[in-house]
Amino acid sequence: MQNNSQNKISLPVIKRLPRYYRHVLQLQKSGVSTVSSSDLGAFLGTTASQVRQDLNCFGGFGQQGVGYRVDLLASALHDLLIGSSNLSAILIGSGRLGRAISGFLDNTVQGFSLVAAFDNAEYQIGTSLGNLTVQDIAGLSDYCKLHQPQLAVLCIPEKSASAMAPTLLTLGLQGFWNFSHYDFASLAPDLPVENVHLGDSLQSLGFRMRHTDI
Amino acid sequence: MQNNSQNKISLPVIKRLPRYYRHVLQLQKSGVSTVSSSDLGAFLGTTASQVRQDLNCFGGFGQQGVGYRVDLLASALHDLLIGSSNLSAILIGSGRLGRAISGFLDNTVQGFSLVAAFDNAEYQIGTSLGNLTVQDIAGLSDYCKLHQPQLAVLCIPEKSASAMAPTLLTLGLQGFWNFSHYDFASLAPDLPVENVHLGDSLQSLGFRMRHTDI
Repeated sequence: MQNNSQNKISLPVIKRLPRYYRHVLQLQKSGVSTVSSSDLGAFLGTTASQVRQDLNCFGGFGQQGVGYRVDLLASALHDLLIGSSNLSAILIGSGRLGRAISGFLDNTVQGFSLVAAFDNAEYQIGTSLGNLTVQDIAGLSDYCKLHQPQLAVLCIPEKSASAMAPTLLTLGLQGFWNFSHYDFASLAPDLPVENVHLGDSLQSLGFRMRHTDI
Repeated sequence: MQNNSQNKISLPVIKRLPRYYRHVLQLQKSGVSTVSSSDLGAFLGTTASQVRQDLNCFGGFGQQGVGYRVDLLASALHDLLIGSSNLSAILIGSGRLGRAISGFLDNTVQGFSLVAAFDNAEYQIGTSLGNLTVQDIAGLSDYCKLHQPQLAVLCIPEKSASAMAPTLLTLGLQGFWNFSHYDFASLAPDLPVENVHLGDSLQSLGFRMRHTDI
């Protein structure tokens, strides 16, 4: 991958990439062949200059006066975000949320394969989850040594995540999609972690609905 | 509710409230009786001054030199975030994600009650979802007129959300927990909407895992 910048790409830029990709795919479907940075910016609620700056981080795909070729941009963003091989993911916590999230990961988002699922509850172990069978969490370390999965999807309570964290960080996992409220930042500040706090999202929405006066 | 500020509370402040509440509940469980703004700030990864500023928006609960009384802060945050009555919520889209999210809303987060679920797929209509029976989306308007639910949880594809949006906005709904990629901001800029973009979250995580060099 071309990278004109000596600096690390900032997290806000990385977080905008899937939105660029989504929009560019839609343009492609609609038969649009070029798009200006200001049109891209308008869609993302940002400026043309921000768009140019973002995409320049990756070598830039635009041409003065013409804009971006949609096909080139789509394929560049595909390469950046999805690449040519899937990241292997394991699910930790096969409760209701874990099952939904794993189905989402496996069926809806490109670039990932769910390869195993673990739980500590007797009634979950041995049940099926898609094509997989939920395994006893006691076998997690051995599994990781043997198969070296890359991503862990954590659908467990904060307490369990907190208790497991020191172990989880020794298993060679390269990233966490974290639905627990446990915060990995103190133990592993540089590890790629995406926290999804569904409860916080819902509660702050509730606040806005309850207090429309402020 | 006391509100010392003449200005609207900003969204970032509102989004921090659930984290304050979560931490304060934990302190309460641990038997801690007072907490300083700097300790609260350290937990939230922000400064003491930011904490004081945030909590002052709601009248302030602290005392110079003593800090915040944990019990008062907990009960004030409870009143702000959860209040005394549940918000009534309907689910639109009872697929795998919708089912998980509705279970989460009903069982895990305080302050909400799921009162109905809708889908347009023949094979979903009439199936049970918790204590509810999934209803035909064709009956949504009548249902809303009769029961005036407050929140809609959207677990449908972007296309469906986009097609339904003009109707949804006439049903008296006061907020949307939006798992589709449809953006309500253009039609209803002031309506409380929380967008949860699971796919974007996962893709940007994938990017960070694939490109650890940049």
